Amino acid sequence: MADLRLARTPAPPYFVVVFTSVRSAGDNGYAAMAERMLELAAVQPGFLGVESARGDDRLGITVSYWSSLESIHTWKANAEHRVAQGKGKDQWYADYRLRICRVEREYGPQG
Amino acid sequence: MADLRLARTPAPPYFVVVFTSVRSAGDNGYAAMAERMLELAAVQPGFLGVESARGDDRLGITVSYWSSLESIHTWKANAEHRVAQGKGKDQWYADYRLRICRVEREYGPQG
Repeated sequence: MADLRLARTPAPPYFVVVFTSVRSAGDNGYAAMAERMLELAAVQPGFLGVESARGDDRLGITVSYWSSLESIHTWKANAEHRVAQGKGKDQWYADYRLRICRVEREYGPQG
Repeated sequence: MADLRLARTPAPPYFVVVFTSVRSAGDNGYAAMAERMLELAAVQPGFLGVESARGDDRLGITVSYWSSLESIHTWKANAEHRVAQGKGKDQWYADYRLRICRVEREYGPQG
């Protein structure tokens, strides 16, 4: 059965930002900022959806879907987002990698 | 500080399979098969790394990195993997999406 937490994206091609990270100890304002960034991302031009998971081992993956590389660049340059990026680098993440990818094909339970 | 659980991939381009899923209730052999699939994937030609996270809400994301589309197709067709795919569809996942993507750029804390 369809789970509405999984993003409903259009036919490829479109783009995905794969952000894998390890949270450092403590919250330090992280949870509130993460929620705010999801809200803010969702109203950006070209935003198609987002999925996020983090396990008890503090390793997390967030994938956000975008209609174009330009929409990803515009979101990256967003002033409030840039503040969050700085805090992420300095305080919230022990390590991370961010990958910008072009989605070529998509499959689900119905093929 | 570098966290060894994050995949160390080569310079782009390479490919990523983004698998987002919602686990159905119960284990039903899932944990053992998931572990086996990680072992088996790791010895496939073209395998570059894998990262995986699942939260308490049962939503999980696994990203596996590959050197070519051909290596992804070969892994998809692996006999033992096909058995796991069938059980995933029938028993383990309430819903899922699988996306095959080309990695264009990668960034980390050092840029």
